[in-house]
Order: sequence, then structure tokens, then C-alpha cells
Amino acid sequence: MRQGELEYLNWIRKQLKYSPSVIVGSGDDAAVIRRNKKQLLLATCDTIVEGIDFKLPPATAREIGYKSLAVSLSDLAAMGGVNGPIYALIAVVLRPNLSDRFARQLFMGMKTLADKFKVEIIGGDVSATKGPLSINTTLLGITQELKPLRRSGACVGDAIMVTGHLGGSILGKHLSFTPRLAEAALFNRLYRIHSMIDISDGLLIDLSHILEMSGVGTVLYEIRLPISQSARYLAQRDHKSALEHAFSDGEDFELLFTLPPKEASRLMQEHKLKIPVSIIGTITKERGIYLQGFDDKIHPLKPSGYEHFRSWSKR
Amino acid sequence: MRQGELEYLNWIRKQLKYSPSVIVGSGDDAAVIRRNKKQLLLATCDTIVEGIDFKLPPATAREIGYKSLAVSLSDLAAMGGVNGPIYALIAVVLRPNLSDRFARQLFMGMKTLADKFKVEIIGGDVSATKGPLSINTTLLGITQELKPLRRSGACVGDAIMVTGHLGGSILGKHLSFTPRLAEAALFNRLYRIHSMIDISDGLLIDLSHILEMSGVGTVLYEIRLPISQSARYLAQRDHKSALEHAFSDGEDFELLFTLPPKEASRLMQEHKLKIPVSIIGTITKERGIYLQGFDDKIHPLKPSGYEHFRSWSKR
Repeated sequence: MRQGELEYLNWIRKQLKYSPSVIVGSGDDAAVIRRNKKQLLLATCDTIVEGIDFKLPPATAREIGYKSLAVSLSDLAAMGGVNGPIYALIAVVLRPNLSDRFARQLFMGMKTLADKFKVEIIGGDVSATKGPLSINTTLLGITQELKPLRRSGACVGDAIMVTGHLGGSILGKHLSFTPRLAEAALFNRLYRIHSMIDISDGLLIDLSHILEMSGVGTVLYEIRLPISQSARYLAQRDHKSALEHAFSDGEDFELLFTLPPKEASRLMQEHKLKIPVSIIGTITKERGIYLQGFDDKIHPLKPSGYEHFRSWSKR
Repeated sequence: MRQGELEYLNWIRKQLKYSPSVIVGSGDDAAVIRRNKKQLLLATCDTIVEGIDFKLPPATAREIGYKSLAVSLSDLAAMGGVNGPIYALIAVVLRPNLSDRFARQLFMGMKTLADKFKVEIIGGDVSATKGPLSINTTLLGITQELKPLRRSGACVGDAIMVTGHLGGSILGKHLSFTPRLAEAALFNRLYRIHSMIDISDGLLIDLSHILEMSGVGTVLYEIRLPISQSARYLAQRDHKSALEHAFSDGEDFELLFTLPPKEASRLMQEHKLKIPVSIIGTITKERGIYLQGFDDKIHPLKPSGYEHFRSWSKR
């Protein structure tokens, strides 16, 4: 999300007031509405647009369809997952020069993922324009006795954890990632998670959302960062380091969350999923993002810009 | 909606299967999910796109924002309204050359209508592209002991009723109409309505959706059709009759519904709303749409094309 868009959303939020039924309104990964004592309704929507979220080609119709649903599922995951049914409404704005076959493949890409996660597609809308292809996906998730995990709950002393490997998703992962919905619900059920977000804009930017909304800071450990092969590969070809790619490439769609260090240790010991999980840092009282490097020195980082950071990290 | 889009949606519907919790899936004005014995969740989404649903100018930012929410509220109305809270998720795809002021006015257009209908805007998404401006609005409506009114419920002998005046909405109404949400819920609560839809694509096309899904036909009475001043005005300037405008102009966003004739008479007598309501025809066993003209003769109509119709109706 660009700066202007973020400012617009922040301005919008100031115009809004909520009734008590709205537990989480605009400003987190999904909205949360209380239906009754036990039951919550999670709602989120996301638009993916040609030229920004994918390029056509190389992306195929199936991949684009898959991604359109996957990014919204990742938003539900980022709220701590759901343990009830999930419903989808999908609005497609086609270009007239796309074939019927393309449109059907696009849907089949959504359907593959919908079937995997038992998402029922209950409605939608189709229109056509000369402009770029875009797909808006709204997801409704019903959850019972599963706490919504907000961005604002991080506590001083919390361990910061992340799933998977980071960086370089542009090489393919951004079109084929598996939303961490099952993992989010599992972690939420078994551990005292304080805050959670999914990594869509890049580790540092998404982490800064948690930090800002929780009023805290962090130290990250360079030695602990799970850098992807794709990030290392990209670093050999461009002017950025693999670490920079892991920090700032968007669209990893991994879970980033904080919890008490004892809970984090327990999760590391008990965790038997097929995906890696890493403790990458600690929440601190002092604001800002710092990196404890391989040299054991503490370096300040900036969630955007990276000018200072770049000067020493490419090595 | 164009032919290709309709075929695509019909194909999509064939790929979908639903669990028992989905009372109405894709293919009506809104989806309906049962949450418990009493409570239903209605969900609908609609995209409005620059160049198709509005032109900029003459439409203003406020008008476009207003319309984006109004079309989705009209979909909730078309399902028989709701008597509980309504929540909105709004996804805006901006063009970079639109100003901050424009974006804020756009939101204020939505907000005006949201406040009027007590809609809570719980989330959204903003992105930007070089392509046309588009806005996707998803509405969630909670309803209790209020029956969803489907397109498929029309019975032989039913009276066909419509709110307001039809045709010529392009002259302004399509940007400023009031969604008939209150009327829909009132009619639904007090009368035995069999089927309902809102007029978005034009009277004949939307009526044909009711007829096809109910497996019935109709005779309309020319003398009863509430033709708008705008339709009459347009007829003086172009090659179509005012009747044709009332039949085929889209975006009236009035309610079209069927109910037993005794119920229709009762509604006409008791009805004390500020908007006109008309009985415009009868549901028949024989398929097709027929018009009983001022000449008392019966003329066949076609919901699209109008070639046959045009030859005699311009007079």
C-alpha cells in the first residue's frame, strides 16, 4: 500500500464511529462483528489489480484467480483464523479482450483454493471495462470461541515469530502461496498470542503496523531471520542484499505474530507442522526497529526508505 | 449486464455446490445464510465502474460515492429488506490523477447515505491504477424473522407491482435515487409477497429474471405503467417512445414484485408511503411477456432486442 492510500484510509477511519456490535472496525486485517455471546463474524475484502498485484503474462488466469482468493484468506489468517464456515463474494472486472476460456480458468483458480479451504462462493458480480483486470474478494468467516488477534496487542518482552521464509516472492510465491489459515487457528487455540498480522507489504512495514498500534518497539536478530532461497537468488542479480529482500519484499503472506517468550519456546518445541517457524526478535519499550547484526552491534532500521540501512547491509 | 457476463455467471453457478447453511446462493440479488433458527445473514456485492456506471464528469465524486453504496442497498431491498444492522466493506480502485479532495468527497458521498440508512462501514481497501475508477461495495445485512424474497417465487395469478416511475434515469436519478429498503421491509412484513427484484437492467429484463426463475409468463397493462417525466422528455429527443424508455432504460432501482391480487389491492388501499406504487400486470401460466396496449390488443414483447416492439410502439 502506498503512502497516499494509507493516508486516505487513516482519514476515512477518523470519519467512522461504531456501534458496540463492531468489535474490530476498519484498520486491521479483517473487521469483527459480534453476533451473540459465542459467535463472531469476520469480514475482509481485498482487490487485486493487473499491473500492480500481477502482470499478465507471465501470470496465468488460474494463478490470478488463485491469488485473488488467497490474499483474502491470508487476511482471515492474520486475525487469528476461523473455526467455522467461510463464505466468499467475488467481483470480477474483466477486459473485453480476454477470452471466455480465460474467464473460466480464472474462476477455476479461485475454485481450487476455495475447495481446499472449504470456502463457499455465495455470490459475485461481473463487469467489463477497457481498463485493467481486477478482482475483489470479500470473505465472511464465522468463528466461535476463537479470539480475534489484533495488530494492537503486542506487549513489551514478547517474542516476535514468523512462519516460512521471507523475501523474493516475486519469483513465484506471490501467485502460489498457501494462506496460513490452519496455522493461525492452531496457534490461536493453543498459545497466548498477543498480536498478529500477515506479511503483505514486507516484513518491516507490516511489523511497524504492529509496533505503532501497540505503542512499542523492537530488536530483530539478523542470525534468526529465515531468508528465502528466492531472496538470496535475487540478491545475486540486483543491488540489494538478501536481508534487504527479506525485510522489504512484499507478498510473502506469512504470519507475523508476538507472544510471551515462554509461549514462543513452547510453540517451537511442540510445533509439528510442515512449515518452518522462527523467533526473529523481541518487543521492546523503546520505539523504533533495531537490528542486532551478525557483528552483535545494534543498527537502527527504517520501515521505509532504507537509505541508511542500504549503506551498510549490502556486503 | 451484458450477454457474455450473464453466460459467465450462469456457467459459474453450475460449478457451485452449497452446504445447508446457504439458503440462497449465487443467482439472486443477495446471498442468504442461516446463522440460527431466527437469524439470517444477507450478503451482496456490486462494482460500479467509470465509463459504464457513471461518467466523470458530469458525475461528481459525491454522486459516485453515493451511487456505489445505493446500488448495493437496492440489492438488499430486492431480497425483501432487512430489519437488523447493516455493515459495509468498500474497495476503491482510484486513478492516480484524481485529487485527495476527490477521494474524500467520494467517501463523503458514501457516508451521507450510510448515515441515512445506519450502515456501518467496517472495512475496505484502497488501490490505484491508471485504469478507470471503480468501487466495489459489499453489504452484510442481519435480519430476523423476515423472509428472503427470491426471484423464483412468482405464482400464476399474482399481481405485478412496481414502486416509483420508470425510465430516463440517465437524466439524473441513477446518481441520486433512494434505495427502497424501508419500503421492501415494510411490504415484506405486512403482505404475502411471492417474488421481488430491483430494476437495475430495465423493467423487461429484470421482470424476465422473475419469470424465468419462476417458470411463468406475464401480461402487462400499458395503461397502468408509471412512466417517468424523464422518459417522456427523452422520447421527445430520440427515436424511442416513452414506453420503450420505461421498459428498457436501466438503473431505475425501483422494486418490482409479485403477490396475490387480494394482497395487492390491500396494499394499494392501505399504503401511505410517499412514493407511488402501481399494479402493472398479471403473472400467467403461458410463458413470455405480453403487453395489453391502449388499443386493448395483446402484443408480444421481447426483453432484449426490441426490434419487433419498436416497429409499433413509437407512435
